[in-house]
Amino acid sequence: MKPEYRSSLPPAAGELFDEMVRWPIFDPHTHINPHQPAARHFEEILGYHYYTELAHSAGMPAEAVAPELDPDSRAAGVVLYLDRIDSTVQYSWLLEIARTFHRFPHDRITPANLSELLTRADHRQSGPEWDRSVWAASGLETVFLTNDFDDPLEGWDTRNYVPCLRVDDLVLKLHEPQTIARLRKAVDMEVDDFVGLRRAIGRLFERFVARGARAVAVSLPPDFAPRAASHQRARTPIRKAIHGMNLRRDESEEARNSVFWLLAEFCADFHLPFDLMIGPIRNVYPGGVAGGRDLFDRRVSLYDYRELFNHFAGVAFPISTLSPDASAELVAYSWIFPNVYPMGHWWYSNVPAFIAGDLRARVQALPKNKLLGYYSDAYKLEFIVPKFNMYRRLLAEVLAEEAIGARGWAFERALDVAKLILIDNPKRIFAEVAMRSAPGI
Amino acid sequence: MKPEYRSSLPPAAGELFDEMVRWPIFDPHTHINPHQPAARHFEEILGYHYYTELAHSAGMPAEAVAPELDPDSRAAGVVLYLDRIDSTVQYSWLLEIARTFHRFPHDRITPANLSELLTRADHRQSGPEWDRSVWAASGLETVFLTNDFDDPLEGWDTRNYVPCLRVDDLVLKLHEPQTIARLRKAVDMEVDDFVGLRRAIGRLFERFVARGARAVAVSLPPDFAPRAASHQRARTPIRKAIHGMNLRRDESEEARNSVFWLLAEFCADFHLPFDLMIGPIRNVYPGGVAGGRDLFDRRVSLYDYRELFNHFAGVAFPISTLSPDASAELVAYSWIFPNVYPMGHWWYSNVPAFIAGDLRARVQALPKNKLLGYYSDAYKLEFIVPKFNMYRRLLAEVLAEEAIGARGWAFERALDVAKLILIDNPKRIFAEVAMRSAPGI
Amino acid sequence: MKPEYRSSLPPAAGELFDEMVRWPIFDPHTHINPHQPAARHFEEILGYHYYTELAHSAGMPAEAVAPELDPDSRAAGVVLYLDRIDSTVQYSWLLEIARTFHRFPHDRITPANLSELLTRADHRQSGPEWDRSVWAASGLETVFLTNDFDDPLEGWDTRNYVPCLRVDDLVLKLHEPQTIARLRKAVDMEVDDFVGLRRAIGRLFERFVARGARAVAVSLPPDFAPRAASHQRARTPIRKAIHGMNLRRDESEEARNSVFWLLAEFCADFHLPFDLMIGPIRNVYPGGVAGGRDLFDRRVSLYDYRELFNHFAGVAFPISTLSPDASAELVAYSWIFPNVYPMGHWWYSNVPAFIAGDLRARVQALPKNKLLGYYSDAYKLEFIVPKFNMYRRLLAEVLAEEAIGARGWAFERALDVAKLILIDNPKRIFAEVAMRSAPGI
Repeated sequence: MKPEYRSSLPPAAGELFDEMVRWPIFDPHTHINPHQPAARHFEEILGYHYYTELAHSAGMPAEAVAPELDPDSRAAGVVLYLDRIDSTVQYSWLLEIARTFHRFPHDRITPANLSELLTRADHRQSGPEWDRSVWAASGLETVFLTNDFDDPLEGWDTRNYVPCLRVDDLVLKLHEPQTIARLRKAVDMEVDDFVGLRRAIGRLFERFVARGARAVAVSLPPDFAPRAASHQRARTPIRKAIHGMNLRRDESEEARNSVFWLLAEFCADFHLPFDLMIGPIRNVYPGGVAGGRDLFDRRVSLYDYRELFNHFAGVAFPISTLSPDASAELVAYSWIFPNVYPMGHWWYSNVPAFIAGDLRARVQALPKNKLLGYYSDAYKLEFIVPKFNMYRRLLAEVLAEEAIGARGWAFERALDVAKLILIDNPKRIFAEVAMRSAPGI
Repeated sequence: MKPEYRSSLPPAAGELFDEMVRWPIFDPHTHINPHQPAARHFEEILGYHYYTELAHSAGMPAEAVAPELDPDSRAAGVVLYLDRIDSTVQYSWLLEIARTFHRFPHDRITPANLSELLTRADHRQSGPEWDRSVWAASGLETVFLTNDFDDPLEGWDTRNYVPCLRVDDLVLKLHEPQTIARLRKAVDMEVDDFVGLRRAIGRLFERFVARGARAVAVSLPPDFAPRAASHQRARTPIRKAIHGMNLRRDESEEARNSVFWLLAEFCADFHLPFDLMIGPIRNVYPGGVAGGRDLFDRRVSLYDYRELFNHFAGVAFPISTLSPDASAELVAYSWIFPNVYPMGHWWYSNVPAFIAGDLRARVQALPKNKLLGYYSDAYKLEFIVPKFNMYRRLLAEVLAEEAIGARGWAFERALDVAKLILIDNPKRIFAEVAMRSAPGI
Repeated sequence: MKPEYRSSLPPAAGELFDEMVRWPIFDPHTHINPHQPAARHFEEILGYHYYTELAHSAGMPAEAVAPELDPDSRAAGVVLYLDRIDSTVQYSWLLEIARTFHRFPHDRITPANLSELLTRADHRQSGPEWDRSVWAASGLETVFLTNDFDDPLEGWDTRNYVPCLRVDDLVLKLHEPQTIARLRKAVDMEVDDFVGLRRAIGRLFERFVARGARAVAVSLPPDFAPRAASHQRARTPIRKAIHGMNLRRDESEEARNSVFWLLAEFCADFHLPFDLMIGPIRNVYPGGVAGGRDLFDRRVSLYDYRELFNHFAGVAFPISTLSPDASAELVAYSWIFPNVYPMGHWWYSNVPAFIAGDLRARVQALPKNKLLGYYSDAYKLEFIVPKFNMYRRLLAEVLAEEAIGARGWAFERALDVAKLILIDNPKRIFAEVAMRSAPGI
């Protein structure tokens, strides 16, 4: 597999990169569907929100990728606008997928060669075999999932596809009737009040851990500021939320805060890292394509999380921040709090210009055993390699300059740091953290 | 014309730059006076607020450039302090002007050689001819103006100097008596209430469009957060403002918001882009020199503009943000909203260190057909070339690294992107947007 | 002395660096104890909060460096975790100290070679001689201190170790009984009300200036927003604070503001620069090691200081901001206000990745006579050289690229700018500012 970007790297960076691409990939956060991890039709690649939203931003009507259309039409809809986004890094992932996994011989995807690509990438008849083939060709070792709390967690090998309990619905949508209905069904218990809710969430944690879950994750809006919860005070708001009654704004915040705090308590009890993905506001642009409607308010600070970090000293908090300009603050908080870890480069911050600066600051200022390098956030396996290659290239450049160049380190020593960042740290913190609370190497 | 900075560029960037400097310049935002576009006396260059404010910041008393002084004295006042700012990029523009347009042979402007420079640059006898000479030597094709709403828009060729309706006074100073007086005079109508105001603004738009205007522009303070206006609710505050009555703070905001919304409605009706220049606070330093008193509060977010972007899906919003650290958010909003365009690099963000990072992120993450590369914001024609050269150099570097280096693109393909960014996009969005609402290439 | 990092610099930068390291060092802000400026035991180096907090963040229990332990044990406690932070720039200072001052021959500090290092660095028998030796080997010329208001300021040569009046306690802790007790004792006067407080502070200024003090300094939390004080209105809150009575929140702010304003008035009267160090919040992480508990809220703006800058036009305000993303705003405020100076790169912003960007923007956009390059913030003399070398390397790179490369300046001219930034400006503003109010060269 010949990765993109290799040729323009300076020598030392190129050699570091060459080593890194041989390593297995440990991907601690994705949205892969373990029942169908690879794309059976190339529309599952082209339909990734990064392409539909950029094509839409560039002029494509949202209707061109409406769900009711057939996949070929949706693919054609996006491809018509690809020439407008072909200078983006997101497009470079797409081309790397086409070339790497489908031996696509052209250097652009156009309406004229789309049908060739669709044919080459058609794996509707060979699904599971294709999944295994992509897994092997990508050098994947461990891929974390994002699982709804009522996911039955059955039908796949959870040592490869590791479950992660996603709790947004519990924290942010407790008052919506279907949330409680789903919860009651998932745990097969009545849930009528705070005590019932706590019991139900305990049941969820037990099931997830029994099925190999190694993380809990939540995305939180910029106005969320967790405080040490008084569960006592939250009992009424939570009961009202559970029963679909109207909550005042302060009650709603009380309930939200209490549930969040409860989840952190369970993370402590079950020795699970709690991934905090801070910043998104949902549906800021309702007229957008699916997955392309969320944005953020950049006026956010980790100072709002101080009580949480202090109270749960034994819980590891891998943190992703959405607004690129918030990343320097994450360096400072990871520098001081032993349980705060800077995790990857997320969504609107997942752009080389932003990653390069953030990564350099993290390498220069933070303990090397705390850097959680990268995760793909992928919906399909094929995206993992091009995204990791983008990151590995930047990591190679930073380490070549900082470690080999400025410090005069031997190649092998720089490579060891790369391995910590890409593999050892995520593995230690996510895969083996259960029995230890303090970080180590 | 031998542009500054050429020699230190890496080879591929140098070649890109060499091509770009041959292109005509499309400058979508300036403060040029079309009746006297070039400087007749070099003090009109030295008196640019970038020099007077930096010289003042470096120690020059504000009185040294008082308006009542004669031009030679004011020029001498600034030059006395130029050695304190000669490492700045702003100074490099100045020197490039002296060398390029006046064959100034020295590499510094000092009290000792000022009179030579003033003599070389004296065009008081040959004004209009000098205007044409600078226009031709600069390779200018289209220069947008900034016109007060009561500008008669007469006396120049609006195909070269394109009018742009500046609406700050209407939005922010409606309560000041002279605003309404000027408006009444400009449209020759009574303006007593909301209905009258709407009719008057409609008349302004008609006149501006008839005279070739291709944009509406406004600069907005950081605390402005437009909401979907209830013009009904704003009727009383607007009537009070028109009649110079005292407004409560909420009434004042209601009026301001309603007028702004009204202007966006007219932009939609007349198919005009609405330039939003977000951030400045006027007169933060009242003791400063003219033009050098404004600053900002960095705590600002485009999230405050969400209702506007959603409501006016058919209006193009070219956006400039003032605080350098706000620029990453603009990348995200331009990525999602089809009608949000990142426009140039403005004022306190118009510094190579900031431009380089912002430009790289825009190129990497945004549709190439949405990038509105640069505008000079110039008050005199002579500034357009050195400012554009600064930008073209940075653009050449970014494209050489990102497109030719990392992607392995052919030179011509990278050059095509440069042309989109510098010319095609601004031309499409500003000059030909009238009949289309969706962006295109 | 062979400085770290030299070898990887490009040629022109390397030559600039070689010159700079021969210059004497003017360090305008440290926490050196003038009675024992150099470390007598290497634990005084290893115990610097940068190492204890990073080691703690990397997994070391805070108890490993408890104050009641003996120095050897504390040193051993930190060293056990050094391999986890050996890729940081902070570690590079440590290694440079060991190699430069103690001829430590190894390239890592480990439990295995710690005792060798402790032996080499043991100067408990030769304290004052060692102080002089480090001073000379470091090429120090002037080192500013941080002195409590009740420091007797006796027992050292204040031409080398220049006093600086630190006023945090007066501004932020006036209501704590020991503050007033210390103040009464320091000035040997009763202090019962605003008038008494003003007289006492006047006495402090007199004593400090008589003892050669050249600056006043304060660190301010992000929510502090000084307003033109009404000392009249503050009389009651200040009297209540002095007498340990409970203050309402608004009274507390009134008192804090009034004392701060009073201090600025004295800075004006005594022609002293007022160092503002903006951002820290104390004790955000109470479980941390000593000195490693403070963080910040990034939502801060210099706009909050506008009244101060305007009112005290004759006072120089050297400003450090803590949150790295706030630094671009400091460029703009230094650009406009003659009395605002960007000073060094502080604490969480003192990381090469942040310095490089900030420094480039300052050099490109600000008068060169206003740049206050760097200060070490050191607690022991040994830290001054490695920290300044880090900065000098970055300055060399920026000037090689910006001045020599892009501008085509002669080497000597670029070097002159470096000298302004490192020596002439700090010397002028701090050491000789008394008799002048306007900046100069």
